[in-house]
Amino acid sequence: MKEFFNVTGLKQVLELAAEFPRSRTEVLPLDQVLGRVLAEDITAPHDLPEFARATMDGYAVRAASTFGASESSPAFLAVNHSVGMGEAPTFVIDPQDACRISTGGMLPEGTDSVVMIEHTEKMDETTIEVYRSVAPGQHVLEKGEDFSKDGVVLRKGQVIRSQEIGLLAAFGNATLPVFARPVVGILSTGDEIVPIENKPLPGQIRDINSYSLAGQVATAGGIPVAYGIVPDDRDMLYDRCSRALDCSDMLLISGGSSVGTRDYTIEILSALPESIILVHGISIRPGKPTILARVQNKAVWGLPGHVTSAMVVFDVVVRPFLEHVGGRLPEAHRRLRIPARLNRNIPSVQGRTDFIRVRLIQKNDGVWAEPVLGKSGLINTMVKADGLIKIDRDTEGFDEGALVDVTPI
Amino acid sequence: MKEFFNVTGLKQVLELAAEFPRSRTEVLPLDQVLGRVLAEDITAPHDLPEFARATMDGYAVRAASTFGASESSPAFLAVNHSVGMGEAPTFVIDPQDACRISTGGMLPEGTDSVVMIEHTEKMDETTIEVYRSVAPGQHVLEKGEDFSKDGVVLRKGQVIRSQEIGLLAAFGNATLPVFARPVVGILSTGDEIVPIENKPLPGQIRDINSYSLAGQVATAGGIPVAYGIVPDDRDMLYDRCSRALDCSDMLLISGGSSVGTRDYTIEILSALPESIILVHGISIRPGKPTILARVQNKAVWGLPGHVTSAMVVFDVVVRPFLEHVGGRLPEAHRRLRIPARLNRNIPSVQGRTDFIRVRLIQKNDGVWAEPVLGKSGLINTMVKADGLIKIDRDTEGFDEGALVDVTPI
Repeated sequence: MKEFFNVTGLKQVLELAAEFPRSRTEVLPLDQVLGRVLAEDITAPHDLPEFARATMDGYAVRAASTFGASESSPAFLAVNHSVGMGEAPTFVIDPQDACRISTGGMLPEGTDSVVMIEHTEKMDETTIEVYRSVAPGQHVLEKGEDFSKDGVVLRKGQVIRSQEIGLLAAFGNATLPVFARPVVGILSTGDEIVPIENKPLPGQIRDINSYSLAGQVATAGGIPVAYGIVPDDRDMLYDRCSRALDCSDMLLISGGSSVGTRDYTIEILSALPESIILVHGISIRPGKPTILARVQNKAVWGLPGHVTSAMVVFDVVVRPFLEHVGGRLPEAHRRLRIPARLNRNIPSVQGRTDFIRVRLIQKNDGVWAEPVLGKSGLINTMVKADGLIKIDRDTEGFDEGALVDVTPI
Repeated sequence: MKEFFNVTGLKQVLELAAEFPRSRTEVLPLDQVLGRVLAEDITAPHDLPEFARATMDGYAVRAASTFGASESSPAFLAVNHSVGMGEAPTFVIDPQDACRISTGGMLPEGTDSVVMIEHTEKMDETTIEVYRSVAPGQHVLEKGEDFSKDGVVLRKGQVIRSQEIGLLAAFGNATLPVFARPVVGILSTGDEIVPIENKPLPGQIRDINSYSLAGQVATAGGIPVAYGIVPDDRDMLYDRCSRALDCSDMLLISGGSSVGTRDYTIEILSALPESIILVHGISIRPGKPTILARVQNKAVWGLPGHVTSAMVVFDVVVRPFLEHVGGRLPEAHRRLRIPARLNRNIPSVQGRTDFIRVRLIQKNDGVWAEPVLGKSGLINTMVKADGLIKIDRDTEGFDEGALVDVTPI
């Protein structure tokens, strides 16, 4: 009877991510950084806004001059100036005066607030009635109210969204240092695997994993590069791995779930220069027969051949490594999780971390997670699933109604 | 006192999306369709898998021949054949025989299940002992168990994830019809706006919206094309809009939150050929002064100038239109929402739909949503926010502890 390998716990495996170096950095134009990872802290080069701006159309005033104003007892103010958009007013407004201003205009000296035009009436060319009082600062963005000069506004390791791009535009960051997207080589192995363009003969199947894994790599911020299908041949696998490693920051080898293939994948990875096998089996399900080697300081993965197992392993194990290499800092980016309640019991075995595919169901009383059942070789389970839930190794499963965190997949 | 415009309810505005035509379709290689929208239903051209496959290493057997087998009373089976990976067995296995098989191998005729190698012992070259019984179908993926021939496996209007790519690979869809990404022209208006490379003079600010909106367009599946900054000049805005419309499926004009600018944006949009103003103000906050015109059967938006207002309007109003044009069907794609509980009261005014920026806080007792307070002109409120919550027009707000749906932003 064949000895099964000694498996490593998920937590211990994930701690190994920190041993791998981060990507180089590159400088990109601001319109190309969406979804990228910031490679430096960004500090505010100036106050934002740099001057007090009106947020309404109306009149810039000294708030005190409107105190007590009402419909029945309006304040009368003289209007001898107006501010054009994009102009810096060169005049000073006297205490009982007002200055015509539009939304976004710069408040002139002597004013501290804006009376909305709806709350005024023009008496003649140079006089208005004001029907409501304003407080100092009302309808105004103060200088530095958004961000103060020299404060850290964005953090290294943060993923850049549209609003961060807007902020960077406000500060004139026309280019930005970001981490390079890690290049991830993908290899499929197995005599039974044929290119997807082929009609498989009986006994053969198409190369699914090269495509599904490429999608996952791209989703996680990497650049997938397919190195094709390698038959079950030691020399060819060795050569293809060597070649792929030369051009990649990480390598995924899928297939070889049979014990024999797994054994020689290990042999080949061990034979590569500067190689060490770090993990040979992980106590997770699906995904137990996963291999992790460090070869020339790059993570090389032996993933299960079943498409669903490979996808789950990618999501729960490989992705955190890829995100580390890609520069993301755990404290600067958080993965979205959706709290939901389980609509049935899920048993689990202690000593192993289980990942269950679920679909989310919106009901009147909240969001429910329904386990998608089926063998790990079935793609339909992934297509039906909205996310994964994790059952920790120390628990025996969840009861119906239990609150779980669903990670979108 | 200036008459304010008649606003339209959010629901009525969103119903207008269906009036706009969908994008053309295009055919792309499978490795380029991640995140794209499927333009046709996909049916299974054959069963998946096309033959019964082993999911474990071991021996293919007729299950009945193992019934009653145990450690103390093993079944003895003859082994005269083995199946190689990628091979179609040409032999038939007799009822009391077994056939060596690896994970992924094709079951030979006469067998219906696989005994794991761990549950067998080799007696001699042609005999094994089996210590456990298996049920018919055990450790096997049956022909058609994943998908049956001719069934619809993916739906038109569905967004393609990694698992859908895997499924399409399995069926040999090397190319795929998808909706073209809508091209969205983006224009900034205002005499106070300068290119981000410039150092703004007092009274000027940089062109933030062109960048933040471009990010949002890309996130929603469109192709943003920047048409730069147009000063407050009727002829220039008319010309630039005409030019942008020639090359776009949708147009965003940001800025012009002042009543005067808004009025002449309306004038210009009305003057364009084949134009009709559909919406002049929406009863939402932020974002009330939003304009929607249909020009040459394309949606043209006048968005608020404040960056945060513009972003919120994009997310809650423009994005559904863009997704419609991009081919997404509401029934085939669902936007992720995160249920959370509010950590403070939020008052709201009836008759208006409010959108509140919140950050998500993970606590022991679940996920909490904390409103991010601040004026709508402040970008920092968007940078701090994880998502938006919606307060319907018929409610007066939410109490602390209320369950809300957070839409990531």
